[in-house]
Amino acid sequence: MSIIIDGCPAGLLLEAEDIQNEVDKRRPLAGTGQTSRAEADRVEILSGVFRGHTTGAPIGLLVWNKDVNSTEYEETRFLPRPGHADYTANLKYGRFNDYRGGGRFSGRVTAGLVMAGAVAKKLLKLAGIEVLAHTAQIGKIRAIASSLEQIRRNVYKNPLRCADKAAATRMSQLIEQVGKEGDSVGGVIEGLALNVPVGLGEPIFDTTEGHLAKALFAIPAVKGVEFGAGFSVAEKRASENNDPFTVKDSKIVTETNNAGGILGGVTNGMPIVVRVAVKPTPSISREQKTVDLKKMENAKISISGRHDVSIVPRAVIVVESMIAVVLCDFALRAGLIKRIII
Amino acid sequence: MSIIIDGCPAGLLLEAEDIQNEVDKRRPLAGTGQTSRAEADRVEILSGVFRGHTTGAPIGLLVWNKDVNSTEYEETRFLPRPGHADYTANLKYGRFNDYRGGGRFSGRVTAGLVMAGAVAKKLLKLAGIEVLAHTAQIGKIRAIASSLEQIRRNVYKNPLRCADKAAATRMSQLIEQVGKEGDSVGGVIEGLALNVPVGLGEPIFDTTEGHLAKALFAIPAVKGVEFGAGFSVAEKRASENNDPFTVKDSKIVTETNNAGGILGGVTNGMPIVVRVAVKPTPSISREQKTVDLKKMENAKISISGRHDVSIVPRAVIVVESMIAVVLCDFALRAGLIKRIII
Amino acid sequence: MSIIIDGCPAGLLLEAEDIQNEVDKRRPLAGTGQTSRAEADRVEILSGVFRGHTTGAPIGLLVWNKDVNSTEYEETRFLPRPGHADYTANLKYGRFNDYRGGGRFSGRVTAGLVMAGAVAKKLLKLAGIEVLAHTAQIGKIRAIASSLEQIRRNVYKNPLRCADKAAATRMSQLIEQVGKEGDSVGGVIEGLALNVPVGLGEPIFDTTEGHLAKALFAIPAVKGVEFGAGFSVAEKRASENNDPFTVKDSKIVTETNNAGGILGGVTNGMPIVVRVAVKPTPSISREQKTVDLKKMENAKISISGRHDVSIVPRAVIVVESMIAVVLCDFALRAGLIKRIII
Amino acid sequence: MSIIIDGCPAGLLLEAEDIQNEVDKRRPLAGTGQTSRAEADRVEILSGVFRGHTTGAPIGLLVWNKDVNSTEYEETRFLPRPGHADYTANLKYGRFNDYRGGGRFSGRVTAGLVMAGAVAKKLLKLAGIEVLAHTAQIGKIRAIASSLEQIRRNVYKNPLRCADKAAATRMSQLIEQVGKEGDSVGGVIEGLALNVPVGLGEPIFDTTEGHLAKALFAIPAVKGVEFGAGFSVAEKRASENNDPFTVKDSKIVTETNNAGGILGGVTNGMPIVVRVAVKPTPSISREQKTVDLKKMENAKISISGRHDVSIVPRAVIVVESMIAVVLCDFALRAGLIKRIII
Repeated sequence: MSIIIDGCPAGLLLEAEDIQNEVDKRRPLAGTGQTSRAEADRVEILSGVFRGHTTGAPIGLLVWNKDVNSTEYEETRFLPRPGHADYTANLKYGRFNDYRGGGRFSGRVTAGLVMAGAVAKKLLKLAGIEVLAHTAQIGKIRAIASSLEQIRRNVYKNPLRCADKAAATRMSQLIEQVGKEGDSVGGVIEGLALNVPVGLGEPIFDTTEGHLAKALFAIPAVKGVEFGAGFSVAEKRASENNDPFTVKDSKIVTETNNAGGILGGVTNGMPIVVRVAVKPTPSISREQKTVDLKKMENAKISISGRHDVSIVPRAVIVVESMIAVVLCDFALRAGLIKRIII
Repeated sequence: MSIIIDGCPAGLLLEAEDIQNEVDKRRPLAGTGQTSRAEADRVEILSGVFRGHTTGAPIGLLVWNKDVNSTEYEETRFLPRPGHADYTANLKYGRFNDYRGGGRFSGRVTAGLVMAGAVAKKLLKLAGIEVLAHTAQIGKIRAIASSLEQIRRNVYKNPLRCADKAAATRMSQLIEQVGKEGDSVGGVIEGLALNVPVGLGEPIFDTTEGHLAKALFAIPAVKGVEFGAGFSVAEKRASENNDPFTVKDSKIVTETNNAGGILGGVTNGMPIVVRVAVKPTPSISREQKTVDLKKMENAKISISGRHDVSIVPRAVIVVESMIAVVLCDFALRAGLIKRIII
Repeated sequence: MSIIIDGCPAGLLLEAEDIQNEVDKRRPLAGTGQTSRAEADRVEILSGVFRGHTTGAPIGLLVWNKDVNSTEYEETRFLPRPGHADYTANLKYGRFNDYRGGGRFSGRVTAGLVMAGAVAKKLLKLAGIEVLAHTAQIGKIRAIASSLEQIRRNVYKNPLRCADKAAATRMSQLIEQVGKEGDSVGGVIEGLALNVPVGLGEPIFDTTEGHLAKALFAIPAVKGVEFGAGFSVAEKRASENNDPFTVKDSKIVTETNNAGGILGGVTNGMPIVVRVAVKPTPSISREQKTVDLKKMENAKISISGRHDVSIVPRAVIVVESMIAVVLCDFALRAGLIKRIII
Repeated sequence: MSIIIDGCPAGLLLEAEDIQNEVDKRRPLAGTGQTSRAEADRVEILSGVFRGHTTGAPIGLLVWNKDVNSTEYEETRFLPRPGHADYTANLKYGRFNDYRGGGRFSGRVTAGLVMAGAVAKKLLKLAGIEVLAHTAQIGKIRAIASSLEQIRRNVYKNPLRCADKAAATRMSQLIEQVGKEGDSVGGVIEGLALNVPVGLGEPIFDTTEGHLAKALFAIPAVKGVEFGAGFSVAEKRASENNDPFTVKDSKIVTETNNAGGILGGVTNGMPIVVRVAVKPTPSISREQKTVDLKKMENAKISISGRHDVSIVPRAVIVVESMIAVVLCDFALRAGLIKRIII
């Protein structure tokens, strides 16, 4: 897979290892019931970097994927997997559809998003902006609200990408159990952006919420995006949902953050808080109902091979990356980063 | 307010009345505890229509708003209303901020979105696509799942825009109660798009989910967007969440629609189902904590005037409009509409 | 006609008169053989300005055109005027084509471009950038290279928009002569942008030359765009065409400016020089060959009414405006203007 | 170098050889006094093609360039070459500028444009559209107007890329002469698009002229773009410049094609004719005046190495490619290609 990142200003220290480290966070980890396909993605920088710094030219990146075994997919080519885009792809691309492992719709494409995120996070750091993400829920198990310190410390040490260690243990058990049943389970990932200045985003057509949501729905399996109090606002009164302004250390902040750092589509200086709903991986070994596209009749499918019982932990770095990419774009447009570098 | 709609093909029957009817659905209705400011928006077509049909040129529309009374807002100019974009706007636009009633961030701008939606819905009808929306929840009161017939029949006959009449009555009572307490309440709006062909949307960077979400977050007060099973996927197993394919009347459909009509970011031919969380209107008469921006010290604010106790019913047509605008754009790009007209 | 300008930062002093003055420069002037249709365009600001300053919201502008007399155009509805877009429009928009005076393709639309230019020039002035344009050639009569001072002083005092007064006189005579013959004549307009900083534009996909050319070809009647030495480079050697760098007043400049201020698509700090070829107005009273679209047979057409013998003088302000709009966009993206205002 | 082509529909027969053939046309040819650096660009398809057909996914292409010898450029790093973007790049990217051979501004980037053109031309062929280009002028030597047959037959058999063989011989002699003088020379390339349907392009903001010009100015060294009669319209009367409509074989055509196939920014069904002015390659061995950026004082530069005496012949395929890319985009949007493939 090759990706090209355009718009990165000149002068950013960048080496392949920076990107490799991020891509590695997307790999399946032992003890999470996740796919054990060895995806030894090696990142190579093709262009845009000279003597260790970006030059202002597009950054070309390359990752060599191991060959996909097409035969494996040949058998079920005309049996669209429920919950996957197989059927859609079949109608959209007809007989030219690349049906191997989801093809165009494969989760593998998220490696590219993580590579972009790696560059974006390095740029955001120059503007003092930090982006975090963590597993907030798997099945019915919810992580207890963790401090920023816990999130920073625990998430990538932990195969579950969960800041709450006790919850992580129970999540592991759930995944093991669900895996044994030949099933999979969904979850929720929370993303945070800290130290974002007031005023990013334009009302109506270029809101930060809109751009973040569009980017997050680019991640396969995401079915919902909410900011701050999110869907819980439906049951709230304004008297509890409005975040009171207050002066703290000569700075204006809000006492609560139900707005998730965004008011009127524009950042208000509080942390951006966004949560995404991740559906259970549709590939499961349990027999499912489907149709035979050739015979146009009902059929059954059992998907062999090892698959992620929950994609949530592996998707944490993807969520983090997409938030970073969007905020980096806003920060660049606002002149926040350019000024620092040069 | 003036708006310009570009990209409408030539030959669509269009008169001001078509747009007026939609704009009127956004007006506050008696018995919903909503604002009684008479906003007699009269729509005028300035260009792009000749002898009753669109010409292919940009459609210029005009709505004359009654003069806003600036003095009313003068008093609280430096007391940002909690939950509003006042503070953000103040930092973003400085002393040039139009602070009258939210200015750039005012809900009034949604009249423009509804006008665009009116044209989009007429175009979609030519491709056989129908868009609906209805109040699904206000506070803790949830409408019972209604048939399409009920939604079509009841929503715009009903000040609550709710297809479930019994729920509508309880919602009215809740709104009355909350209004008496000087407070406001949030809710959920559900949108539906029927008869959408398979294959609209492009994976990753141009998904239907992404574009719909971006458009829906353009609506002030929306804090969450979910498709199909939405956030409930977090607790689900794939065996219950995957929608089994089946042959019905020689057509491939899914038995359930947890995907909300979208797989891999691309429409799968089932109804698109999207739900948005609407926060309680931040303007309330109850005293709230804020800061005095001039003195940089804590202060109190009580917002006078009548305000919507729940903006949900008035936002139903806005949600419907935004869905229509996005799908119309996809349908035009896919050549679905052009071919029918000419 | 209504136009909406989005992206103008808050805080620009703006009143209708600023825009009116520019729009008036587009009106036909006595003694140029130009159309005498009284187009008393009155500019009105609908939104985006509060207490004399822009607010950061979209600026809505309105110009009331006098009613077009459709009957006048009815007769020749199916006789496409050679050199006009009538035939193209007929096929593109079919029976819904607005055939009155060119409809969608009418030169009237340039009033909107001039309004946008008026705002852009005010913004550019804040960054110290000045945009000029003048008539360089009409028919075979070329203006002699004028000083910036002559251009600034003479152009808008002169119905020909020509800085070289002697040439202007001969141009007037030519126009009178051509008009008597029932014909029209083309010309060349030169645009200049002064004090443009080094580094605006991105190589390949976002060059200043590319964006300027795209904007200038938006002007009806423009058939060529060249920068600096332009088409004369074809006959030149590098030893004469390369602009030697030199140090002048401790600043690096070039001794000549064959590059027209742009190297590699990026501004180099020298004045931007661009020339556009304007074709003779296609509406002439002399009989021309055309086809009858209804009968599909050859026919003749004589276009009645008064028309511009040369559109060049009236197009000078349009060229100036388009250059300003493009550079303003680059300047805003580069943060040149925002910083100055706030 | 890696490039990614997005938006190519599924089902196009495509192999690396198709692209290689086009890229090879960009290589310098013996007897044209052109650079003899062996650029053995080998094209590799990384993604987007499965079993010989495009899949609808982005097409990733790779070309391995031989290592650039940085030392060669080290010496003149602070002596910007007149006519090159060195000075501009130096200010834009500061000390991070990739100064090797023009870096970001190097003509090498045009290999990517040619690759995109290769795919675009294959798609256009499915819609019956053909794109051609040829050398129309080098120095003062102009090719005599050639028939389409001559252009198709001669151009790529001929190192000068010139359809007029007699002119080609004189161009060769000129180039040899200019090369001996340590100088270089410019020229004009003409591009043609045949069988383009009526109605591509949208007036004002999306004209075919505007998009073609923007794409053509992306080619380094292009300083002018004109359509049809181009700059010669300045001296013309409408009575000679207007193209009379006439019925021919029951089809409406124009007797002449001064409009170059485009009226009002929209194609009129006649061949698109566009001409671009190409400046003399700025790299010459003759001593030139420049400045020493470190010492901020005047200096001299002699550029060693072999360079193209005229870049015109090598740029012919680039012009052809850019025209194809732009028209392909219009054709796809108009649904011309999609329908044919599936």
